[in-house]
Amino acid sequence: MKKFLAIMLLLIPAIVFAGGQQEASTATDNSAPVKAKYIMLFIGDGMAMPQINAAEAYLNALDGSAPGVKKLSFTQWPSQGLTTTYSANAFITDSAAAGTALATGSKTDSGVISMDSSKTKKLKTIAEMAKEEGLKVGIISSVDVDHATPAVFYAHNESRNNYYDIGLEMADSGFDYFGGGLIKTYKTPEGKPTVLDVMEEKGWVIAKTREELNALQPGQQAYAYYNTSFTTNSLDYGLDQEADDISLAEYTKKGIELLDNENGFFMMVEGGKIDWACHANDAASSISDTIEFDKAVKEGLAFYNQHPDETLIIVTGDHETGGLTLGFAGTKYGSAFAEIQNQKISYENFDKFIFKPYMEAHADGSAQLADLMPEIEKNFGLTDRSDYENEQLEASFQRALRGNVRKAENDQDYLLYGGYNPLSVTVTHLLNRRAGLAWTSYSHTGVPVQTFAIGAGQEMFNGYYDNTDIFKKMKSAMLGDGQVALAE
Amino acid sequence: MKKFLAIMLLLIPAIVFAGGQQEASTATDNSAPVKAKYIMLFIGDGMAMPQINAAEAYLNALDGSAPGVKKLSFTQWPSQGLTTTYSANAFITDSAAAGTALATGSKTDSGVISMDSSKTKKLKTIAEMAKEEGLKVGIISSVDVDHATPAVFYAHNESRNNYYDIGLEMADSGFDYFGGGLIKTYKTPEGKPTVLDVMEEKGWVIAKTREELNALQPGQQAYAYYNTSFTTNSLDYGLDQEADDISLAEYTKKGIELLDNENGFFMMVEGGKIDWACHANDAASSISDTIEFDKAVKEGLAFYNQHPDETLIIVTGDHETGGLTLGFAGTKYGSAFAEIQNQKISYENFDKFIFKPYMEAHADGSAQLADLMPEIEKNFGLTDRSDYENEQLEASFQRALRGNVRKAENDQDYLLYGGYNPLSVTVTHLLNRRAGLAWTSYSHTGVPVQTFAIGAGQEMFNGYYDNTDIFKKMKSAMLGDGQVALAE
Repeated sequence: MKKFLAIMLLLIPAIVFAGGQQEASTATDNSAPVKAKYIMLFIGDGMAMPQINAAEAYLNALDGSAPGVKKLSFTQWPSQGLTTTYSANAFITDSAAAGTALATGSKTDSGVISMDSSKTKKLKTIAEMAKEEGLKVGIISSVDVDHATPAVFYAHNESRNNYYDIGLEMADSGFDYFGGGLIKTYKTPEGKPTVLDVMEEKGWVIAKTREELNALQPGQQAYAYYNTSFTTNSLDYGLDQEADDISLAEYTKKGIELLDNENGFFMMVEGGKIDWACHANDAASSISDTIEFDKAVKEGLAFYNQHPDETLIIVTGDHETGGLTLGFAGTKYGSAFAEIQNQKISYENFDKFIFKPYMEAHADGSAQLADLMPEIEKNFGLTDRSDYENEQLEASFQRALRGNVRKAENDQDYLLYGGYNPLSVTVTHLLNRRAGLAWTSYSHTGVPVQTFAIGAGQEMFNGYYDNTDIFKKMKSAMLGDGQVALAE
Repeated sequence: MKKFLAIMLLLIPAIVFAGGQQEASTATDNSAPVKAKYIMLFIGDGMAMPQINAAEAYLNALDGSAPGVKKLSFTQWPSQGLTTTYSANAFITDSAAAGTALATGSKTDSGVISMDSSKTKKLKTIAEMAKEEGLKVGIISSVDVDHATPAVFYAHNESRNNYYDIGLEMADSGFDYFGGGLIKTYKTPEGKPTVLDVMEEKGWVIAKTREELNALQPGQQAYAYYNTSFTTNSLDYGLDQEADDISLAEYTKKGIELLDNENGFFMMVEGGKIDWACHANDAASSISDTIEFDKAVKEGLAFYNQHPDETLIIVTGDHETGGLTLGFAGTKYGSAFAEIQNQKISYENFDKFIFKPYMEAHADGSAQLADLMPEIEKNFGLTDRSDYENEQLEASFQRALRGNVRKAENDQDYLLYGGYNPLSVTVTHLLNRRAGLAWTSYSHTGVPVQTFAIGAGQEMFNGYYDNTDIFKKMKSAMLGDGQVALAE
């Protein structure tokens, strides 16, 4: 018996903590309710298993290693789940309904921001609950922070497109920190103040530069954004970022610094342009933004390492985008992921900075593909082309010349180009196919996403469950009420 | 302290068992090595998350329910993992290398049957270890049991194509039961006895009919197969099965009856034609065979329910096939999975029993698509066709008329038809697309597969790990040596 008594004495600390609210041990005692003081939810928009796996296969290929994967930070975590994403009215969800499910635990119709399907009842979000519990709250995104995924955490609206009203809720949220892309100030109704003006009037500190971001202090209600005058309101693709760009990881690191306090915090960080890249079937941009997203996750992980017993980090996607898979009919059993490194800029920057100026300069009808090929080869590789590849490029260029690309000429036209610039989408298709990557859609798909977790309550995130369950698990960890059991 | 002492006394039984070999509790004590007396490994060939999800979305749609999934038996299990599948020499594996990883825990080159990459060293399989440990062993497949996936459990050969030698190893395996498809007796070298003859000489009981299957008794070394004279050596697709067909579930149920004994057993069951259906991009056949596979799993589950503390069941795939996703460019955010029920027969039966006889009867040049359309509508739906759909059907029929379809005329030809009958592959493509399902390949892809587990040692199967780890986890459970920890 002596031996067993010795073992039992070793167990005492775990038992002592089991009944308490703070610092319940995460891994050893499955029966005690877990409470997480710090909760970080990272959402890769459009990021399901294929997006993660493409990034990992690419990183491995860059090493010149044997076939395999080089794991991202979060895929090495102890807990991993499979998560369904359908909305109340569609198997293939949009980001508003998927985000609402994550933020409120309720299914709603696609397009709706944290209201029920009848669009009459506001749904309380995990971020609002956190605020009520006395936690600090931060919302960060690489896209405009009034976009659907960030919006579902602070706004309630029948439509994700009501940007001005969503922005006003942001100003009224009482949250502590917003970071990332600029809200759509150009959606301000005539005669009304911009949301930025409203926020400043309410005492928010607006940080527009890296210096202003760095100068922010805990206790200030702050909105930090970065906006390059010549692109969209979002952060640039990782592939296009230069030294003066502020990264998602930088906004995340600052967020943790601002939110860290003795009452705890809830922070949501979205990698929003993985989705946009996948809509455009641009694998290199998806991969680079998945890596950017992982860098932001690593900032969360650094905090976790300081507070492992009190921190819960969850990484998930809201849905898959593009129907990406890691195999293409033409390449059969072959893969050549390192081909992707030949792409130096996103499709977006090619369209804006190469294609558009060229077409404008040749509006007299003198435009020809041959003029653009040096730029294509420089920025995407695609040398030593097959006849088939040349035919596809020429056909796409001719289609671009006919204009009006957003309106498909026929079914085949839409399948080939999806309303994107026919030339650049063909360029990325051809490059992706060389690598052994292929797409089936320019929209989202309905396949489940992968969820990963580390920290207090991580065990809850094993298994196969719905996106609404992620809210329930987070809430259970936040309140420490044991409503969701740690293990079966 | 009194309270804590009481709790500690409750813990004593768990601690006492921790050192023991038999019947360690599966769910409550993470530190005790687990031993599973009965281990069943179910492998869906070509079955990754998209194949599972397509079946679940289809079953849900048949109910006319709101968007969602109707879960298969095994996806409801408590443990679920994500599993990489690459082989030693290719990111996209074949079934031989993937099977070798599952059966032996070692990566090898694609095409190799349980030997190392140098093709000189035989690798001991989990089934051979089971036999050494005194367990009974059974190997079941819906395809020829000398095909790669079943073969890796009993044979060692530099090539999966050496069917005769593989068959001889089956005869020499000392295993207790083989069930399912007929081995390739037509590969018998001239002047040699067939493997069936060799087996009979060695005392194996060969059961060719349901009556003979039912008559088998524990203690007999048995090989039970079903072979319809007019199709391949495999079992028919679920979609094509009639009352006299013997199903994978039937072979599985009988297997459990024959293998059940006080020393335990190891049984592998393969759903092999999910892969074949996906190579041909035939979603209905993939879904029906995934459901057939699930029925076989349910037989395992019935046994588990009688012996929950001593049984471990694992369900996994060896790789994904076809690049299936649940979204198609043309249907955008829409899905109509119930469309799939319009398909009444597999592409294979259409080719054999409708297309081939028609073409032979019209070899004089009088063949025309219009003659076949009533059969296509009857067996696949596809009424109310768009101009685009009609164009695709006509083009595929014209291609079929030109013959030599296994040899692609050009890149586009291969992308469209993949060496299959151009008409039937176009028919299934069009039907799948109407449902919102799409494919990127006629080969395998490299995305990870999903693994599910229930029973003694189930916790080991949470997380993100390699297919070689499945062997290690199974072995740890079989030997009860605690070599693989139950939880992080």
